[in-house]
Amino acid sequence: MDSSYSSPIASVRPAVDAELTAFLEQRSSEVHRIGTELAPVLQALDALLSGGKRMRPAFCYWGWRGAGGTEDPAVYTAAASLEFLQACALIHDDVIDNSDTRRGLPSTHRRLAELHEKAGWRGDAAEFGRGAAVLLGDLCLSWCEDMYAGSALPAEALRAGRKPFADMRTEVMAGQFLDMVEQVRETSSTEAPQRVMHYKSAKYTVERPLQLGAALAGRYEELAPVYSSYGIPLGTAFQLRDDILGVFGDPEQTGKPAGDDLREGKRTLLVAETLQRVDTTTSDRFQQLLGEPELSDPAVEWMRDLVESSGALAACERRIEEYVENANRALDRSRITDDARRALSDLIVAATARKH
Amino acid sequence: MDSSYSSPIASVRPAVDAELTAFLEQRSSEVHRIGTELAPVLQALDALLSGGKRMRPAFCYWGWRGAGGTEDPAVYTAAASLEFLQACALIHDDVIDNSDTRRGLPSTHRRLAELHEKAGWRGDAAEFGRGAAVLLGDLCLSWCEDMYAGSALPAEALRAGRKPFADMRTEVMAGQFLDMVEQVRETSSTEAPQRVMHYKSAKYTVERPLQLGAALAGRYEELAPVYSSYGIPLGTAFQLRDDILGVFGDPEQTGKPAGDDLREGKRTLLVAETLQRVDTTTSDRFQQLLGEPELSDPAVEWMRDLVESSGALAACERRIEEYVENANRALDRSRITDDARRALSDLIVAATARKH
Repeated sequence: MDSSYSSPIASVRPAVDAELTAFLEQRSSEVHRIGTELAPVLQALDALLSGGKRMRPAFCYWGWRGAGGTEDPAVYTAAASLEFLQACALIHDDVIDNSDTRRGLPSTHRRLAELHEKAGWRGDAAEFGRGAAVLLGDLCLSWCEDMYAGSALPAEALRAGRKPFADMRTEVMAGQFLDMVEQVRETSSTEAPQRVMHYKSAKYTVERPLQLGAALAGRYEELAPVYSSYGIPLGTAFQLRDDILGVFGDPEQTGKPAGDDLREGKRTLLVAETLQRVDTTTSDRFQQLLGEPELSDPAVEWMRDLVESSGALAACERRIEEYVENANRALDRSRITDDARRALSDLIVAATARKH
Repeated sequence: MDSSYSSPIASVRPAVDAELTAFLEQRSSEVHRIGTELAPVLQALDALLSGGKRMRPAFCYWGWRGAGGTEDPAVYTAAASLEFLQACALIHDDVIDNSDTRRGLPSTHRRLAELHEKAGWRGDAAEFGRGAAVLLGDLCLSWCEDMYAGSALPAEALRAGRKPFADMRTEVMAGQFLDMVEQVRETSSTEAPQRVMHYKSAKYTVERPLQLGAALAGRYEELAPVYSSYGIPLGTAFQLRDDILGVFGDPEQTGKPAGDDLREGKRTLLVAETLQRVDTTTSDRFQQLLGEPELSDPAVEWMRDLVESSGALAACERRIEEYVENANRALDRSRITDDARRALSDLIVAATARKH
């Protein structure tokens, strides 16, 4: 989701960024006092945070506004704290997957490995980078909490937000683990990627942030169901669009090489739909190529053609349409404020459009 | 510190354990609902948690009692939450250090790698184990927070505890990073290990937990200084004792092979004191052997002799005595309750005794 056209996100960004900057300034000076050696770690964090799209804070904010919450500066602190959770998820995800790049730039553990290389320290630079990145992710998770708890919202509101906030964290970590298991056990069922999407994407990115906003505004019980009916299909459609772009996306727009998800061997629903529609020999051949880091361009081309000719691509597009319809229907029936309904309706378009 | 003789810890343990069990039961059933594949992850966590000594909860509890806090069951919830922070620190520390054992048993990432091996999944089992352990540590950090925030203490008390709680988490992660840096840049100054001990041990294990207890009882401002004057020297002395045991400890008592810290290459104050007291040739030889995984028994013997004959061991023992005196003096001058003073005095003996 690019911020350039998604105005319900763009409009939230300046206040979220200001909160992050203020928090980081204060924490950075504390950390510098512990040791100036920590400066490059904080720089790596800055680099990662500045590239974020603020999607979860935006959904949290609109969840709050939909529940009748006013333009209170304190809600931005709580909403912005979710960026630290996301920073931890990205840093640790790249360590787990051994990914050297993130959004076309060096991943955090690579940046920290470079620190070791340049200093000419003893031992393995890559191992140092990974270790330092694990610690930085932990710091982000702690700061997520500190920032949330330090919001100027009433204690009662923050306490009410604890339930979706806690669920969100447990679910994303559980979802990540299930994803790891699905990658290594090589099941080709369509249920497996759907369960992973449900926890890692739909709940984590859309449903729980919206519910957090509702809870902060004191209307969790009432609005949690409608935010689920909207958030789960929208979050799933968003992930499906992302999976399609991972295979067919234009490198200039995605910032990733063409067919990158195929080289990485991601077991998405798109892949599962393909495997279920072809004969065993073709399926075996596809799975042999899947995850091959040195995958040739003609091989990528063959795999893409198969995803398309098998009907898997069309099936996923149909699912996206269905989910979008469901999300829109949930919005129409919802008892939320008009401006939030408009913003959430715009977010459906922004999150699932064919061009990113 | 063995719980068998440290009654101020042993007396706190049953209530802390009961809190942990109740919390885990509830969370485990939630996680099982997400996916039964997560069962072995929760088992690995159980195994780790059951082996803990509850030192930080005990210091938190006695910090609370010293501030006049009563025998309120709610304080045990907040105190017990620190065990999840410690679980995260241990799990991630073992990943960072590539340690295959913890307290004589397989480390968490090893347990999770075995899961992969037994299932015969695709790819590298060790990598899977490390990735899963990173996620489990993250889950522990989130649960630390959930448990703390879910304590039945008044919102005002929990809010007051936020300052030492936040400091504790930032400091332990910053301290761990500084430790990583000191290991790889091979400085032989005595300042470097002292700074690491200050953050990773003294503040994290003793000072901040005590201050958290005082804050929960509403007396942070008043008691934070005295808990520092007691906690910093005691925590440092405790770490020094641990470092000495890491080189000279009886394997039957420490649960680790003789001279294990030398094989691991830990740059402790004991090592720095040794290097500063010998000639360059001897120092170079010592540093070459330090961190050699296949270190022979005669080499360990030679290194131990040098630590002793150089006067480094005696210097560290003198420091421990000094720190113990300082901690005792701080207690004598403190305005805390009598039963807490007695408990904290016992803890000095327990934490720094020559036999563990």
